[in-house]
Amino acid sequence: MASKNRAPVIKEDTNTGFSTRVEWRNQRSLRPDGSFNIENKGGKWFRPGDIYLSLLTMPWWKFNIIIVLIYLVMNTLFAVIYYAIGTNNLTNIEGVTQWEKFLDTFFFSAQSLTTVGYGRVAPVGIPESTVAAFESMIGLLGFALATGLLYGRFSKANAQITHSKNVLIAPYQGGTGMMFRIANIRQTQLVEVEVQVTLAKIAREGGREIRRFFPLELERSKIAMFPLSWTVVHPITEDSLLYNKSMDNLKHDDVELLVYFKAYDETFSQTVHHRISYRAEDFIWGARFILNFEAQPNGPTIHYLNKIGDYEMAELPSVKIQIPEPGQKEIR
Amino acid sequence: MASKNRAPVIKEDTNTGFSTRVEWRNQRSLRPDGSFNIENKGGKWFRPGDIYLSLLTMPWWKFNIIIVLIYLVMNTLFAVIYYAIGTNNLTNIEGVTQWEKFLDTFFFSAQSLTTVGYGRVAPVGIPESTVAAFESMIGLLGFALATGLLYGRFSKANAQITHSKNVLIAPYQGGTGMMFRIANIRQTQLVEVEVQVTLAKIAREGGREIRRFFPLELERSKIAMFPLSWTVVHPITEDSLLYNKSMDNLKHDDVELLVYFKAYDETFSQTVHHRISYRAEDFIWGARFILNFEAQPNGPTIHYLNKIGDYEMAELPSVKIQIPEPGQKEIR
Amino acid sequence: MASKNRAPVIKEDTNTGFSTRVEWRNQRSLRPDGSFNIENKGGKWFRPGDIYLSLLTMPWWKFNIIIVLIYLVMNTLFAVIYYAIGTNNLTNIEGVTQWEKFLDTFFFSAQSLTTVGYGRVAPVGIPESTVAAFESMIGLLGFALATGLLYGRFSKANAQITHSKNVLIAPYQGGTGMMFRIANIRQTQLVEVEVQVTLAKIAREGGREIRRFFPLELERSKIAMFPLSWTVVHPITEDSLLYNKSMDNLKHDDVELLVYFKAYDETFSQTVHHRISYRAEDFIWGARFILNFEAQPNGPTIHYLNKIGDYEMAELPSVKIQIPEPGQKEIR
Amino acid sequence: MASKNRAPVIKEDTNTGFSTRVEWRNQRSLRPDGSFNIENKGGKWFRPGDIYLSLLTMPWWKFNIIIVLIYLVMNTLFAVIYYAIGTNNLTNIEGVTQWEKFLDTFFFSAQSLTTVGYGRVAPVGIPESTVAAFESMIGLLGFALATGLLYGRFSKANAQITHSKNVLIAPYQGGTGMMFRIANIRQTQLVEVEVQVTLAKIAREGGREIRRFFPLELERSKIAMFPLSWTVVHPITEDSLLYNKSMDNLKHDDVELLVYFKAYDETFSQTVHHRISYRAEDFIWGARFILNFEAQPNGPTIHYLNKIGDYEMAELPSVKIQIPEPGQKEIR
Repeated sequence: MASKNRAPVIKEDTNTGFSTRVEWRNQRSLRPDGSFNIENKGGKWFRPGDIYLSLLTMPWWKFNIIIVLIYLVMNTLFAVIYYAIGTNNLTNIEGVTQWEKFLDTFFFSAQSLTTVGYGRVAPVGIPESTVAAFESMIGLLGFALATGLLYGRFSKANAQITHSKNVLIAPYQGGTGMMFRIANIRQTQLVEVEVQVTLAKIAREGGREIRRFFPLELERSKIAMFPLSWTVVHPITEDSLLYNKSMDNLKHDDVELLVYFKAYDETFSQTVHHRISYRAEDFIWGARFILNFEAQPNGPTIHYLNKIGDYEMAELPSVKIQIPEPGQKEIR
Repeated sequence: MASKNRAPVIKEDTNTGFSTRVEWRNQRSLRPDGSFNIENKGGKWFRPGDIYLSLLTMPWWKFNIIIVLIYLVMNTLFAVIYYAIGTNNLTNIEGVTQWEKFLDTFFFSAQSLTTVGYGRVAPVGIPESTVAAFESMIGLLGFALATGLLYGRFSKANAQITHSKNVLIAPYQGGTGMMFRIANIRQTQLVEVEVQVTLAKIAREGGREIRRFFPLELERSKIAMFPLSWTVVHPITEDSLLYNKSMDNLKHDDVELLVYFKAYDETFSQTVHHRISYRAEDFIWGARFILNFEAQPNGPTIHYLNKIGDYEMAELPSVKIQIPEPGQKEIR
Repeated sequence: MASKNRAPVIKEDTNTGFSTRVEWRNQRSLRPDGSFNIENKGGKWFRPGDIYLSLLTMPWWKFNIIIVLIYLVMNTLFAVIYYAIGTNNLTNIEGVTQWEKFLDTFFFSAQSLTTVGYGRVAPVGIPESTVAAFESMIGLLGFALATGLLYGRFSKANAQITHSKNVLIAPYQGGTGMMFRIANIRQTQLVEVEVQVTLAKIAREGGREIRRFFPLELERSKIAMFPLSWTVVHPITEDSLLYNKSMDNLKHDDVELLVYFKAYDETFSQTVHHRISYRAEDFIWGARFILNFEAQPNGPTIHYLNKIGDYEMAELPSVKIQIPEPGQKEIR
Repeated sequence: MASKNRAPVIKEDTNTGFSTRVEWRNQRSLRPDGSFNIENKGGKWFRPGDIYLSLLTMPWWKFNIIIVLIYLVMNTLFAVIYYAIGTNNLTNIEGVTQWEKFLDTFFFSAQSLTTVGYGRVAPVGIPESTVAAFESMIGLLGFALATGLLYGRFSKANAQITHSKNVLIAPYQGGTGMMFRIANIRQTQLVEVEVQVTLAKIAREGGREIRRFFPLELERSKIAMFPLSWTVVHPITEDSLLYNKSMDNLKHDDVELLVYFKAYDETFSQTVHHRISYRAEDFIWGARFILNFEAQPNGPTIHYLNKIGDYEMAELPSVKIQIPEPGQKEIR
């Protein structure tokens, strides 16, 4: 009985690396894509490593446009140089107007940059030959760079994890549990999968607000293989920070749920990571996930990735408010 | 005496990540090649990463055919464009019939795509020159992609483990043991080798069938180096799930043996993984593996990979059926 | 009371791998950039792996100069060979003077090395053709090497950690603490960050000097994520080697602070390392770091990398000199 | 006194992965280069992965010869095809004799394979054009392969550890110790270095010989950094397998010392491994290593890699032969 009345034991995580200062409300620690909500300033403005990094992580359509643009810019740049030197140093220039002549140097430039070098138009004098020799070298090095970038983009063993849009407060083993669902959307096979969930909230201490981080205990924080969706469950016991909490409580405390995912990717032989950030408005009270896989009599089990977030409403067990019995308080 | 009669202590593994639902019989968790018996649906239909992945893991003959096909398709595509623009914009087109003219554009297209650019046939006008400039760029990027793919295919540190076709129930230290044999078929040197064996079976609980996963204890689950074949042994003691079990028992329980292999590949400096799945019909009662290596007086020991599964029949010790003594049952 | 007077318990780290011999004063174990202050001699003078390594780690401007130089040297080398064989074996050599003829072979050489091969100038006889065939092969392999180098340079997951120039002896929880500040200057996301700090000092033992290494205890030696600057703190308790020490003490003992940083780079899926070395003259007594980040009402927190070392003067609490009570000395 | 007479406590390592069968004497478990003394047979005869592996690990001179040979073979192969089709399908063939004509096709083949394509000689008809298109593709893919191989060869983070030729039985802390010395010969920085030493010897058990493996305890089995040579020491206490052993004993027992080295390479961000095998004849009784590094007043410490094995003779302390006192034997 004493156990019913004990104060919740809540462990704080002081080693998250995030600041505990509260300057403004509604400040996320993580952006929705899982990256740190931080902007670095005051570093060197030109960093080859960071340019490489953004070329590695940008979407494909953007990458392709940039590659074509760089090709066109380099091409035009050298064309202007050939044109400035004079087209009489190139063989078989057949353009009559200045614009036609420029176009001829433009195509000669393209043929040098890609090293296709048909040779109908070819450099004759020393200045044109020098520039052409340099352009071919730049071309080869440029495509060497593109080779590395393409390989880097494809071979990056990035976890691509999909997750349910919402966090459900659902019926769980006679009580309630906080649940969200995650799945691997790549064809890679993930093993030794771990999840850590941290709850960030604003607390009032000594008259000022401070942001605190608390690890949430999970029903299961590690699974050996990850073939299907995984419903991560935090049982809402009396010790839980979410015990008897409503949406209003969560919003008032500026709650953020930080999910840290780690797994070993067998296909790329690398450890992969992923982070998810949920906010108070992503919570739903009284709902339960719908099964999103289906076994077949012959053949594999079908796993529906697009149904990862599907849920149905479900009644929550009425929460018994714990009223300490008289005469029990002293015992503790 | 009590110890002889005690109930087997069987630990369940609830963190495999596989579903415990039984919808159909004879449903494997793993396919024979070790991959998850799951098919994902509902994801994005076009995923560059997954295309790369399948190009990385498909057999060589298939990969080579695809590379040649892509080359031919790209080549033809550009040839059609040149032909549509008109062959009078190309120098030295000697074809007379339309088919011959098309073939001329086809070969010009090949010379542009590979950037060999002999130049006997060369573009003159603006439209042809533009397409040719674009084709050379596509060609270089395409071969850049091929470079990455070839490197990725070769450098993938995938464990290539061969295993005995059968699981033997063999004489072992006066009793019996469940045994299978594995070996490394690559020239790479594997160290810190670990094996985990999980037995999946259907159990009847509360009127419905449910799939349960149990880790099997091994004589030895880790070896420092892996130069020869390793006979993995699960001693069939009274505590074993296989104690006094027959082929019929295993089939009735829809048994699947999930083997998880992990090692460090010294040559590629990467951790490698492998999984094997055995079914009831792969078990043989009363057999023993034949030694598959042979030392030589001068020179290395010869290790026969093709004899990994060779066995001979061997009589099993008669199993003493445990009859609980009267008056003992209550104690437990 | 006895606890106030107890001798400091100082653990020595005997497994650093550095020598304990003291031959000269002011000898660093680590250079300011964190590399070992050791020069290897007596190895093989030509090591392809080490050449690759230095091409991988040298600054970009140096790398680019070397690539261009190698290109020019190879180009000239083959030009000399063509010139020696005779320019009458090349088509369309239009140079009149010997120098012009040499320049023609030089540009032909460039066109072969880059495989642009315009073909206006082309080899005719057997010797020139043989050399040209060889040069094209060398060219392709050379640019293959450059591809690998460029990729290797970009994809190296090297931690780029910036650190405060000084180590501060600052007010800390009523007493004092030794502090320095570190931050990640790359766009990569670092997690599971660990820091170890070792203090190297000269001790006098048995009449001769010996260098000893002592691990310093930190307020916190591990953080989960590394979005902002981390102020690493060694609390200067009575047990600390820095307790009641002045700049003169540190200089006299030839103190060096060895900082070992380790983190997991999520973007490159690799563990990264960094080392820092501080000397006695980098210490400042009575100063405190200024906050170098700032939250914004809407949008991310701004983190100023260039303010990592900014500090303000701060009064240290007066240190209570521990005077052993009479009659206590004998006990220890 | 009982402690002086107690039987040595010797732990066996049963998980080495090596066979305990003794078929012949003088059989090494490891070759001098540290690879397993095993030859696999019965696998598939053509394994692309293994070809790649041997191209990756063979010496540079061999690799270069193979690359040039493949180039020449491919070149000649296509030349034969062009020659067979007929040189009248190629432009500007100026050879008169059949041999000269073949040489012309040979150089055309080289120009197609490297995609230099000067175009003086160019294909005209359909058969020649088809073969040329195919050859250019093969050429590009071939050099793509070479790119991958070159990158793979350079970027392999293989530990290159040099070790003393001999194992010394040297004076150590009033008694004796078994010592050998290792050092890193690359410019890379190794940290978290671990060494395990296993002694393999033949034992006589139940009338037949069997090979047993025993881990040797080391004075220190792990160091944090590896800037200098590391003298690995096994103290020869009464519990040691080497206690009171002579060269004859070691030879009689067919002793092999298996050294397993593991470290983290900071430069390549990878774990590296190395193995060494010493035999009885590599042991020297009564010698001590000479210091192989030297501090300088200004500048780094000089470390002589070529002096790693240098030793001087040193008298061993006379071993007290342990004679069990009468009446003590029964106690144990």
